[in-house]
Amino acid sequence: MQESFEVSASGGGYRVVVGRGLLKEVVADNPDAIFMVDDHLAPLLPIPVNCRILVKALEANKSLECMSEIVLKLRELGANRATHLVAIGGGVIQDVATFSASIYMRGIRWTYMPTTLLSMADSCIGGKSSINVLGYKNLVGNFYPPKEVLIDIDFVASLDSEKVVGGLFEAAKICYARGYQDFQDYLSDGTAAQMSVDNVQRIIVRALRTKKWFIETDEFDQKERLLLNFGHTFGHAIEAGTNFSVPHGVAVGVGMIVAVEYAKKRGWLSPTGIERTSNLSRHAKSMLRLDGGSIVAVPAAIDLKLVMEKFNNDKKHLSDTYRMVCPRGAGELELVSEAKNDDTHRDITWAYESALREIGWQTK
Amino acid sequence: MQESFEVSASGGGYRVVVGRGLLKEVVADNPDAIFMVDDHLAPLLPIPVNCRILVKALEANKSLECMSEIVLKLRELGANRATHLVAIGGGVIQDVATFSASIYMRGIRWTYMPTTLLSMADSCIGGKSSINVLGYKNLVGNFYPPKEVLIDIDFVASLDSEKVVGGLFEAAKICYARGYQDFQDYLSDGTAAQMSVDNVQRIIVRALRTKKWFIETDEFDQKERLLLNFGHTFGHAIEAGTNFSVPHGVAVGVGMIVAVEYAKKRGWLSPTGIERTSNLSRHAKSMLRLDGGSIVAVPAAIDLKLVMEKFNNDKKHLSDTYRMVCPRGAGELELVSEAKNDDTHRDITWAYESALREIGWQTK
Repeated sequence: MQESFEVSASGGGYRVVVGRGLLKEVVADNPDAIFMVDDHLAPLLPIPVNCRILVKALEANKSLECMSEIVLKLRELGANRATHLVAIGGGVIQDVATFSASIYMRGIRWTYMPTTLLSMADSCIGGKSSINVLGYKNLVGNFYPPKEVLIDIDFVASLDSEKVVGGLFEAAKICYARGYQDFQDYLSDGTAAQMSVDNVQRIIVRALRTKKWFIETDEFDQKERLLLNFGHTFGHAIEAGTNFSVPHGVAVGVGMIVAVEYAKKRGWLSPTGIERTSNLSRHAKSMLRLDGGSIVAVPAAIDLKLVMEKFNNDKKHLSDTYRMVCPRGAGELELVSEAKNDDTHRDITWAYESALREIGWQTK
Repeated sequence: MQESFEVSASGGGYRVVVGRGLLKEVVADNPDAIFMVDDHLAPLLPIPVNCRILVKALEANKSLECMSEIVLKLRELGANRATHLVAIGGGVIQDVATFSASIYMRGIRWTYMPTTLLSMADSCIGGKSSINVLGYKNLVGNFYPPKEVLIDIDFVASLDSEKVVGGLFEAAKICYARGYQDFQDYLSDGTAAQMSVDNVQRIIVRALRTKKWFIETDEFDQKERLLLNFGHTFGHAIEAGTNFSVPHGVAVGVGMIVAVEYAKKRGWLSPTGIERTSNLSRHAKSMLRLDGGSIVAVPAAIDLKLVMEKFNNDKKHLSDTYRMVCPRGAGELELVSEAKNDDTHRDITWAYESALREIGWQTK
């Protein structure tokens, strides 16, 4: 069954539609659009060559250095201020489309159709882009939501379990950030690495409706929305410290466990907080391992020193303090600032060690 | 005497201060800022090397291709989300600062101090950037106003007459676009290529207060603000068709005369409209020539065919219509759409020929 809702934003609101068979419709309904499409999806789409831009979903392609080429392609395809861009793909395609649509002739209309569970359940709303610069990950970006988000659930069938788990971790993060009841509701949706299409749709709609509150309350990431970085500061360092062999969504799941361990080490949690965060960690662990086997690829032994170096360089920190989202008290999330000193450094290292041990990943 | 006013904008309003001696103050008041400075102003400023970025005011530097390097410099100077960027320079520095501040970590705070009359009297408010891409002028850009605009009138003393005239043309454009009375008020400010500091300040404040109405009514260039493109579509083609030997402001002045000629040729003006637009053209001509001599450099014979080619390629046109701002009726400006056909093409060429003949510029 098709569902839809509105997200309001300062530059005008946008509609989110979730259902099946939407891919066919978006191609048929927009004969004059330019399509920006994940390279590997191109064979599925009957889009003439003269109105499409293929983008390989590679980290290197969501870079400021590649943006001139994308803009030039728009120009060569005759894009003007009235052009409608339709982007179909996962996070990389979303980043490239958000950024290029926002700057082309100072902004053109665009529609986004996410094709990974991570982009469907989280990034497709909120309007953020994250762009790499000369090797620095996500150093620049902006806010430029599409005019419409069309989520075709049929794409989920083609995703492997690791990608599904990555998407679910972002959904879990959103719901946990909103409150413990929301997290319990998320668990009750029949959350699992292998799910029916109906269950997937239910979780996507729940995660997006929950995220809607954050982005409508704090569109530009000043306060409440920052809580959605839960798992990210710790997780990014795992991604970067393993040369991105751990995918983003999985790293966020592990990052949430690290944040919980850090909060426990610092003594920030009440008995209720310990119980609730333990439930979150248990859920994350259950998603990483199924019946004793591993759902996600286990990386080679992780170099903790390198991870800590990457953690130090995260752009969200200030010059003298680390900034990270951690559970406190009864488990509710807070953006905490910790002085950059030996004490903090030691406890963060401890939290990584403890979390990685719990999920059975080797360190060195 | 120092004057100030507020401009409101969707991302938060900003204050505009006009006065003397502000340069010294902004350097003294912001010990922790990073300064982005026009290269040739660097000797004037006691700013340590480790907190400044020098940018040469060259067309090639306001390009998407150069943006990675600027962003990297911000990173190397330790810029984080709390960093305050202070940009000091003319239009190129404003473009580079607007764009880089808007994308760095998804947006940092910035202050702008314009140093040319064109940037003081026009571009410093409104928040637009215009960035070149692989040789295409201003193909991308965005909206990201500074948090404060500080206009130090002392910079005007160092400007040559040609630069002053360029700035005055943009001021004339703003006032004429608002209404004929506003244009008459502008003329009564003692407008001339050589003026006292007090007169310059009066004209800057008048132009900015008038522009404030446009950008507060239509921040994102959808309707009213488009009228501020008066002179620009015709003028850009003169800039591009002379390989930018005609400076922007001067080209806008000539472009206004072309727009008037086109409107006359199309029979759009009432007797009042003819009188008013003639007064505008007369003023523009008087600014180009002083006592029979030329204030601005007269370009070599202009290749009209090339100018028409550049006109055709302007990004503001749609696929089947030209879009340009012209006077109609009693002289009020309108955004007109003209079918791209031989008839239109002939009359536009005629308007260029007529305008250039009037100001004594050769064509070939």
